[in-house]
Amino acid sequence: MSKIDRWILPDGIEEILPPEANQIEHLRRNILDQFALWGYRLVIPPQAEYLESLLTGIGHDLDLLTFKLTDQMTGRMMGLSADRSQQVARMDAHSIQTSGPARYCYSSPLLHTRPAHLQASRSPIQIGAELYGVMDICSDIEIVCLMLTALKNIGISNVTLDLGHVAIYRTVVNDIGLDHETEAELYKILRQRSLPELDTFLAQHMDKYPLLEHIRTLSGLSGDESVLDTAITALNGVSPSIEKYIKPLQILAQEIQQEFPLVNLHFDLAELRDYNYHTGLIFSVFVDGLAQPIAKGGRYDNTGQVFGRARPATGFSADLKTLVKIAPAVSSEGCIFAPADPDPELKKRIRELRQSGHKVVQALTADDTPETTGCSQKLSFAKNTWAVTNI
Amino acid sequence: MSKIDRWILPDGIEEILPPEANQIEHLRRNILDQFALWGYRLVIPPQAEYLESLLTGIGHDLDLLTFKLTDQMTGRMMGLSADRSQQVARMDAHSIQTSGPARYCYSSPLLHTRPAHLQASRSPIQIGAELYGVMDICSDIEIVCLMLTALKNIGISNVTLDLGHVAIYRTVVNDIGLDHETEAELYKILRQRSLPELDTFLAQHMDKYPLLEHIRTLSGLSGDESVLDTAITALNGVSPSIEKYIKPLQILAQEIQQEFPLVNLHFDLAELRDYNYHTGLIFSVFVDGLAQPIAKGGRYDNTGQVFGRARPATGFSADLKTLVKIAPAVSSEGCIFAPADPDPELKKRIRELRQSGHKVVQALTADDTPETTGCSQKLSFAKNTWAVTNI
Repeated sequence: MSKIDRWILPDGIEEILPPEANQIEHLRRNILDQFALWGYRLVIPPQAEYLESLLTGIGHDLDLLTFKLTDQMTGRMMGLSADRSQQVARMDAHSIQTSGPARYCYSSPLLHTRPAHLQASRSPIQIGAELYGVMDICSDIEIVCLMLTALKNIGISNVTLDLGHVAIYRTVVNDIGLDHETEAELYKILRQRSLPELDTFLAQHMDKYPLLEHIRTLSGLSGDESVLDTAITALNGVSPSIEKYIKPLQILAQEIQQEFPLVNLHFDLAELRDYNYHTGLIFSVFVDGLAQPIAKGGRYDNTGQVFGRARPATGFSADLKTLVKIAPAVSSEGCIFAPADPDPELKKRIRELRQSGHKVVQALTADDTPETTGCSQKLSFAKNTWAVTNI
Repeated sequence: MSKIDRWILPDGIEEILPPEANQIEHLRRNILDQFALWGYRLVIPPQAEYLESLLTGIGHDLDLLTFKLTDQMTGRMMGLSADRSQQVARMDAHSIQTSGPARYCYSSPLLHTRPAHLQASRSPIQIGAELYGVMDICSDIEIVCLMLTALKNIGISNVTLDLGHVAIYRTVVNDIGLDHETEAELYKILRQRSLPELDTFLAQHMDKYPLLEHIRTLSGLSGDESVLDTAITALNGVSPSIEKYIKPLQILAQEIQQEFPLVNLHFDLAELRDYNYHTGLIFSVFVDGLAQPIAKGGRYDNTGQVFGRARPATGFSADLKTLVKIAPAVSSEGCIFAPADPDPELKKRIRELRQSGHKVVQALTADDTPETTGCSQKLSFAKNTWAVTNI
């Protein structure tokens, strides 16, 4: 390989240079600080685990994203963690074992075999929060409010919050009484949002399952808060019990409208993202101009069961590499240039300035100038003292 | 695999739980802030790169630590970065290309195939700083002072700084005129610090290379600053030119003694750590009770050459997982418990408290109590207002 090629990075695996790296660090701290203020405790999940711990049947998608490694010390297969949720579930079930509500947060880089979607990085820096131990809608509200507050604090307020609830679809399908194979076919069609295929499917199966007509209704239940009332009425003929899922959504909607008036709410009761993983409310945050959500999450009760403890859980996550492209940049403070001068008084002055939070770059050779270091101020010797002056 | 085993982590690949994760975050921020105050700019190197970029002949040791992956998008081999230095060299040579001095810093988790030494984690969280573009001792001094300041600021002041200089050994061996094979044998013996083997080696080869006697002298040149003067005199017969390496070490020693009076200096001119990688001054920081250094670094000029730009460079790194075991713990501030009460005034008060930097945990069910959340204060309603009181 020639010198020229050695610096090429694999597609979707980026390096982050200054000043963007600093912006990411700023966002990371800002968001983690917000998590801490709400009582969320930081955990650092390992970069790799044995495959059995990472892939516990929560989905083929995650398996495909996971790099597999041989542990040279045991010969067993390990995987690079492609998502932190399962690891936090393991920690909650086994390592921490709080009995009441438990709040966790994390932020660390991941590596994926392929981009999770067309615009995605293969090396996202995931940041997220998870709330364990509470089934009530109040915990979903806390997580969604925490997410919106964290985004607002980094300057992202004008967002659309998409809300869905996988238990509604699950209940309707169950009440229709579809056999497993037919249900799998329907799921695939709804997941792809293909209306022509849905029409064909319904035409084929309506004779056997007349209640399937309600699936057409469900697939159209998307829009503002009014779809919630519509859903109760429209689906009453097949699943009167879905009211118990709709009411909490209404409470959530009211809370968001009160607390985050700039947030645009959108309901979509046929949204089935990560259906085999989620168990209740699911949500995604969108901003204008981006097809993919900038943050997403939802309820995933009982994933800790494989580690010995099934608990209700909800949470969300985002990629700092995506957020940094949307959040307004913070201006980095300027630096003070210090000449290459061995005077002990200068050394003392530099130390004092740094201790009081000023960035000081000291020249290492006589050739270094304030211009080459990008400083806007400098230390100069005048009237027997080293003073900071503007350049 | 049974439930009971699923939570087992691979040896040396740890998860970090609260409150230790928070301590690590505290150290990370403290050290990165110090780097920034000295003008070091944050970079985020990718978690993986093509193998040709990572392993550029800088040593077999790093190759053994590096997990190899197949890039499923190109079929090419990638490696998980086992050390950030080579990646920073690539960035400096190709991606950034500053012409004068360039200062970089980084902090991110690594994954190693095996522990780098007996006490090491396989998943260290490396933090480090690198200074490119300056050959003069002033840049080594800056890096060593930055390292000692960063350690001091996290409460680690009583350290021993081991200093060596690989160019001294290189010059002596060259002046003796050893053939390649004999030199390799000698290097191995010195690396292992085996005096009996050195005696045997010298007895075997002294006839052909009478100047080898000086290697025995060199291997004994370890101790306080006085060994520097001794070295000039004792090795004058074989390598008078080593004075040019000794003088800068004396300047460095004087600087450290002045600025860090608590630091215990120790010179060892036969220290050959990472010999094939380093080109000049090498240094390690030790604390009582730990056999392995808690931070280390040195000069490694011209590693960027394979990426098209050879530059002088020096730097250091440490593992946050090691530092957190030594640094005094910071006490985490207490939190304020808020009851599960829908009063909008309470909601407002919680928001205000969080905005002014107070940690508030709101109960999600009536069963939650201040005790289960570990809070030391609580919000109670009295005299028509929500007030914070001690528990």
